[in-house]
Amino acid sequence: MPRLDPSAPALAWETLLDLGDAPLPLRDRLERAVREAVQAGRIPAGAALPPSRSLAETLGVSRWVVTEVYGQLVAEGLLEAAVGSGTRVPATSRPSAFGGPVAPPVRGEFRRPRYDLGPGVPDLRHVPRARWADAVRHALTNLPDGEFAVVDRLGHPLARTAVASYLTRSRRAVAAPDDVVITHGATDAMLAIARGLHRGGHRTLLVEDPSWPRLREVAAGMGLVPVPVTVDGDGVDVDRLADAASRTGARAALITPAHQFPTGAALAPARREAIVRWARSVDAVLVEDDYDAEFRYDRRPVAALQGMAPERTVLIGSLSKSVSPALGLGWAVMPAALRERIRLGEAARPSTLDQAALARFIDSGDLERHLRAARGRFRRRRTELLAAIASELPGLAVTGIAAGMHAVLALPAGVRGSDAAEAAGTLGVAVSALARYRASAASNAPEALVLGYGNLSDALVDEAVAHLAWSIRSLV
Amino acid sequence: MPRLDPSAPALAWETLLDLGDAPLPLRDRLERAVREAVQAGRIPAGAALPPSRSLAETLGVSRWVVTEVYGQLVAEGLLEAAVGSGTRVPATSRPSAFGGPVAPPVRGEFRRPRYDLGPGVPDLRHVPRARWADAVRHALTNLPDGEFAVVDRLGHPLARTAVASYLTRSRRAVAAPDDVVITHGATDAMLAIARGLHRGGHRTLLVEDPSWPRLREVAAGMGLVPVPVTVDGDGVDVDRLADAASRTGARAALITPAHQFPTGAALAPARREAIVRWARSVDAVLVEDDYDAEFRYDRRPVAALQGMAPERTVLIGSLSKSVSPALGLGWAVMPAALRERIRLGEAARPSTLDQAALARFIDSGDLERHLRAARGRFRRRRTELLAAIASELPGLAVTGIAAGMHAVLALPAGVRGSDAAEAAGTLGVAVSALARYRASAASNAPEALVLGYGNLSDALVDEAVAHLAWSIRSLV
Repeated sequence: MPRLDPSAPALAWETLLDLGDAPLPLRDRLERAVREAVQAGRIPAGAALPPSRSLAETLGVSRWVVTEVYGQLVAEGLLEAAVGSGTRVPATSRPSAFGGPVAPPVRGEFRRPRYDLGPGVPDLRHVPRARWADAVRHALTNLPDGEFAVVDRLGHPLARTAVASYLTRSRRAVAAPDDVVITHGATDAMLAIARGLHRGGHRTLLVEDPSWPRLREVAAGMGLVPVPVTVDGDGVDVDRLADAASRTGARAALITPAHQFPTGAALAPARREAIVRWARSVDAVLVEDDYDAEFRYDRRPVAALQGMAPERTVLIGSLSKSVSPALGLGWAVMPAALRERIRLGEAARPSTLDQAALARFIDSGDLERHLRAARGRFRRRRTELLAAIASELPGLAVTGIAAGMHAVLALPAGVRGSDAAEAAGTLGVAVSALARYRASAASNAPEALVLGYGNLSDALVDEAVAHLAWSIRSLV
Repeated sequence: MPRLDPSAPALAWETLLDLGDAPLPLRDRLERAVREAVQAGRIPAGAALPPSRSLAETLGVSRWVVTEVYGQLVAEGLLEAAVGSGTRVPATSRPSAFGGPVAPPVRGEFRRPRYDLGPGVPDLRHVPRARWADAVRHALTNLPDGEFAVVDRLGHPLARTAVASYLTRSRRAVAAPDDVVITHGATDAMLAIARGLHRGGHRTLLVEDPSWPRLREVAAGMGLVPVPVTVDGDGVDVDRLADAASRTGARAALITPAHQFPTGAALAPARREAIVRWARSVDAVLVEDDYDAEFRYDRRPVAALQGMAPERTVLIGSLSKSVSPALGLGWAVMPAALRERIRLGEAARPSTLDQAALARFIDSGDLERHLRAARGRFRRRRTELLAAIASELPGLAVTGIAAGMHAVLALPAGVRGSDAAEAAGTLGVAVSALARYRASAASNAPEALVLGYGNLSDALVDEAVAHLAWSIRSLV
């Protein structure tokens, strides 16, 4: 692949950004192409990307596609945007405090934006570093010699036992140690589940519309065509889900009952029962993505749906949203009977040592201590965020706030979410349009912004909202 | 699946051990079936397996297949064998020293045998626990907040840089940080490479005969039919390899140039050049499994073959044989050009934290300090092993001893390796027949034993050899 030559004509971008021909939306293909070009260093640190209009023309795509992609990558810190200087790959070099040789720029420097309203990011200032170090040291000290020789296919017994006990206690899941598979996180779990479903003859997967694109994409990559189902204020519409299933023959659904992503709705009790009834009536598999269910502010967390139908529900969860994705640890609950239906293929599991550390982290009570503290922090931050919005953007509705680490901000009539996200990005506020999580062109996803507050610095809440308000007002 | 009912007739074993219909040798399918039945608890702790003759009759396979499988699983500690009481699942429970609740028996207890001559096991008494804990703590202390949010697709820059520098220094590899992919180990690397080769149109893989079955099986599972090529005292026979390639159209080969497994031969210099010439002439890909190349006793380690043809060689290595498989860390070197040919799919990489710890472990010099100390220990142990064999089994040739952590012991005329391994197993000596690594029925693998000494306790070398000699003499 060619590298970026600053002196080459704009046409070179066509060659540099290979959209490929994967069966994915154009937006996703462009996002991947830009990400890979930056990470592989083909677009070097400091380089400017073309204005969205010009790149859209060059590639023959709509400008919306480009602004969406820029917005997302700015939100992730892979790109940066500043007023007057457009969108570029950050120029700063990796901090050398780490020790050892400073890494060369094999990827764009990953820098969190100043006002980080990206969803799904835990509080990076409160990663329990010392507690995790204790857990690893405990595992290293106490694992018998023989355990250093062995890697388990589904997970280490210590980790499977600890996770089963944690999920039973905190998520009211029905989970014996034998039912737990230790994974690297929800994406890793989805990869294995999608592969297993495909092997079992499934070719479609019912997905919520809107929803988190990554898991859908992973499933699509394994050959499961996503079948979008509308979401409303009560969560996924189960009548429509049943219709879509009978129309397409789909017999597996990926759902977020505790806190729908991105709308923030909790699945209404009647719908919880209805979806289980549906699943039983057509012998379907439910994949329950329990991604931030630990954080509920108005009352105790809603129990996992899995407990209502453990024989056909795969519950997936991880430490990625609650602790850090850098630990690479998660789980899937699927009893042996379900594993015969969803045959897990060959895949590397987290290391024995990490799994032993996970077991210790849970068994010592450190995970739940961390979650309690995080819940308190998020609750306070959420209150401040709501107050700031009420003051700076009076009249704009905020929804989806009963749980989790994000809220949904409605926009004034006529303002598009993608424009608002782009405008905010130029002011250093990383935020996503809700529409970017659409699973179909027919999606009813409203023009709104998804405000993640997991990693928003407490001290910057007011400032972030002020900048956000300024950028929204500039569009009205 | 049914569980073992001790009162049921022997026929139940047919149901309990599902050989499946994977395109693998019967031996491998039975090994997998027994392993899964034990790990899933369908054959409970303490249960006896049928005598090999009886199980062979029940399943309609040759007795050799059963003894091979029993021998392997005894070598791994998943089964145990004792004189007079046959083969059984170990009854002992998991040590509770670990803290937290004691794990229920979700798998058969993994216990190393008393005399551990299994190949590929590092010295479990010398896992650098404290040094690794230091590396993890350093990473946890020094990683910037932002790094706790991110997971890199090919590997963390710190780890890629450290591994590139280590391989350049110690294996004379040609490796820039950009060329390194961080993996969970050689199997994980092979999984990704096989998937990538298959996606690129490959349907066959040239493999050494005999060779380590796991990597062949992984490739076969991804749709690459193994094409066996004879190995002799100079390593893999490159003329035959070229013949097999032109006969089958194979354009990828998995090889162990530094220390062929299991024969222990180093690829002769003329053959190193020949295989590179061949690969260039037909535009083939070489996968170099550099599994224990750090340990060479007669002179400096032979450089990686990869350095002679970096544009078409994937070098795979790991900490599994040199430190411990419980860390789940390895690497593959494949420049961007090769990655365009071997498209890596979605797969979970080791966690950011583990990769940062790996970088620190290498950059601090701890890895190389550990390897130096291990090399000294293995050299001394090898000398003692050879002396004990010369004394207890005079006249039997030992080969493959210039490097690595195993040797090959020829057997007296008329003694079959599988019988010798089984007889040794009943005395607590876990050892494998060389023939069990055959890649084809036509293999010229001699009747011999593979003696791994990586995890053999120094204090037990003489005793182990005495028991081994006793069991071999009992067969003459």
